[in-house]
Amino acid sequence: MKIVIMPGDGIGPEVTHEAVRVIEALGLGIDMKQAAVGGAAYKAYGHPLPPETLAIAEAADGILFGAVGDPDCDTLERHLRPEQAILGLRKALTLFANLRPAKVFKGLEDHSALRPEVASAIDLLIVRELNGDVYFGEKGYRTAADGTREGYDVMSYCESEVRRIAHVAFRAAQGRKGRLCSVDKANVLETSQLWRDVVVEIHKEYPDVQLSHMYVDNAAMQLVRNPGQFDVIVTGNLFGDILSDQASMCVGSIGMLASASLGERKTAHGTYGLYEPIHGSAPDIAGQGLANPMATILSAAMLLRHSLGQAAAADRIEAAVGKALEDGVLGRDLGGRAGTTEIGDAVLARL
Amino acid sequence: MKIVIMPGDGIGPEVTHEAVRVIEALGLGIDMKQAAVGGAAYKAYGHPLPPETLAIAEAADGILFGAVGDPDCDTLERHLRPEQAILGLRKALTLFANLRPAKVFKGLEDHSALRPEVASAIDLLIVRELNGDVYFGEKGYRTAADGTREGYDVMSYCESEVRRIAHVAFRAAQGRKGRLCSVDKANVLETSQLWRDVVVEIHKEYPDVQLSHMYVDNAAMQLVRNPGQFDVIVTGNLFGDILSDQASMCVGSIGMLASASLGERKTAHGTYGLYEPIHGSAPDIAGQGLANPMATILSAAMLLRHSLGQAAAADRIEAAVGKALEDGVLGRDLGGRAGTTEIGDAVLARL
Ligand SMILES: CC(C)[C@H](C(=O)O)[C@@H](O)C(=O)O
Ligand SMILES: CC(C)[C@H](C(=O)O)[C@@H](O)C(=O)O
Repeated sequence: MKIVIMPGDGIGPEVTHEAVRVIEALGLGIDMKQAAVGGAAYKAYGHPLPPETLAIAEAADGILFGAVGDPDCDTLERHLRPEQAILGLRKALTLFANLRPAKVFKGLEDHSALRPEVASAIDLLIVRELNGDVYFGEKGYRTAADGTREGYDVMSYCESEVRRIAHVAFRAAQGRKGRLCSVDKANVLETSQLWRDVVVEIHKEYPDVQLSHMYVDNAAMQLVRNPGQFDVIVTGNLFGDILSDQASMCVGSIGMLASASLGERKTAHGTYGLYEPIHGSAPDIAGQGLANPMATILSAAMLLRHSLGQAAAADRIEAAVGKALEDGVLGRDLGGRAGTTEIGDAVLARL
Repeated sequence: MKIVIMPGDGIGPEVTHEAVRVIEALGLGIDMKQAAVGGAAYKAYGHPLPPETLAIAEAADGILFGAVGDPDCDTLERHLRPEQAILGLRKALTLFANLRPAKVFKGLEDHSALRPEVASAIDLLIVRELNGDVYFGEKGYRTAADGTREGYDVMSYCESEVRRIAHVAFRAAQGRKGRLCSVDKANVLETSQLWRDVVVEIHKEYPDVQLSHMYVDNAAMQLVRNPGQFDVIVTGNLFGDILSDQASMCVGSIGMLASASLGERKTAHGTYGLYEPIHGSAPDIAGQGLANPMATILSAAMLLRHSLGQAAAADRIEAAVGKALEDGVLGRDLGGRAGTTEIGDAVLARL
């Protein structure tokens, strides 16, 4: 079992460090390599996703990713910015399905800005497409009709892209409450109309799943009004970026949420994937030992479960995190005072 | 003073009917014409925005718009769908600035899904660009590299489009708390990078305004976590569609919120504009006298204020709506039992 750790920028190194300690403590003999990404890789090697990093990733069974994003790099040319590391990994490794479960943790019902009765009803999974949409279309600058400079980005989805993510979403719904809501903007976008047509088509293969469609503006409203109504949501890369962050915040503890990005490649005991906390690099608190590593530790658990087939070890980690929370070990994001190492120690002690 | 009423579809006719009664009761001698839009216009004249409707609109000082959207029309070709009426009016009349204030109404703090202390801090204005972005770029179908069908839509903004909306937003911030947050996705989109560069440029003309930038995914989180942090938000057409609906729902009373769409054309006493409630056509409750007409009545007040220079009359309407609320006249959207006509009567009685 081989995994690669990509600490990245900001709080990335601190939080992945704690996750590595947890994985090591399990004594599973997992081979762990480190690889540079993001602003850190740019500063060391001149590129946010060096070829060596990609090669190490390809030789492994899964990736534990910290975070990328560094204000120092905001004025670089686009292809050299830290964000290109995560976008490049998703594309190069065909990790097209981003799974983001959102559910209120026991004992944390009061941490959401939503009323406790609204927040505690949340138990949803967002399936976000990661390899297409306006993220990867042709983009650039040109001269507009009125002679001024114009920035443009082409949004698109083709049938095969929608089909493969729809299958992932329908299967996920089968394993949950059997309800799938596809979110688009078909009243304005042809990209969305094609998306909707293909989802309707694939639905025929999953008659046991109840399918509905919602416009993205309405979905953003419903995620505030009554997020408990959703089971699985499937949507494109751009709408998924917005809605999954919104949903995470509804849960009230963004420092707690993990995510998996999967493709079709199999490993010896599961599916190849990239796992990352959904919080960003938080440069303002980086290097101070203040960040909550729980989301990264939970991402490591997802990696063990989905890419290495180590379900029992994943259960142990998740239980230890749950116990630490119950015992009041709360990071600053949750109004507590526990620092990065202290939280790591607390989880280790409860493994 | 000439205005045109466009009832449209679903609950549109019911709610505009109440607003017309309120305007008439003011005795200002305003000339009101009706014009067909949306699915209703398609059914009667074969087009969602008939040329006669556009001509009547052009000859008036402002438009009071109900809602468009009719499930019967969902399978029509895109250019014949009800939504094209509102998109067509915005574009043909160069109504490029959509202003959506969101603030909790006194006495309605408990109607938001957000905690009362979070909801009651909301006092923001979203300035959404309406004439550009992926809404109006080239769109269609083509064959993808893998031979399957692909839907595409081109997103773009040129400098002149961003400049004019930035001026509107900076001026709005000057008239409020002096803080402007520009929302984009500049870490991925060139359209956003150009947007950001132009906003930074225009900022030089407004040194008294404090400008910040936020990625759209973060903005969707912050609107849940702490919406009270915002004063004015300026953003493009697509992100504005999503975030303004989300913000409205944070307020907890989407049946109460009005919006104005303005351009540069002046009327005798103000600016030409289109005014509409932000709720949609709600086909499920249409024709039953259940819809809350308050958002449309408040839209009429905005029309009087901004397009007709009738500030005193607008104040009277807003005060009457406030009073009706205080007296417990609540529509079903607010957990009350008052119907459409009853709410209209209650506002009329308090004018
Ligand atoms: C860093 C950025 C490019 C990325 C995205 O937009 O996909 C991030 O927001 C995410 O959701 O993983
Ligand atoms: C009806 C639809 C085309 C429209 C939009 O997306 O602009 C609506 O959602 C709005 O916000 O006014």
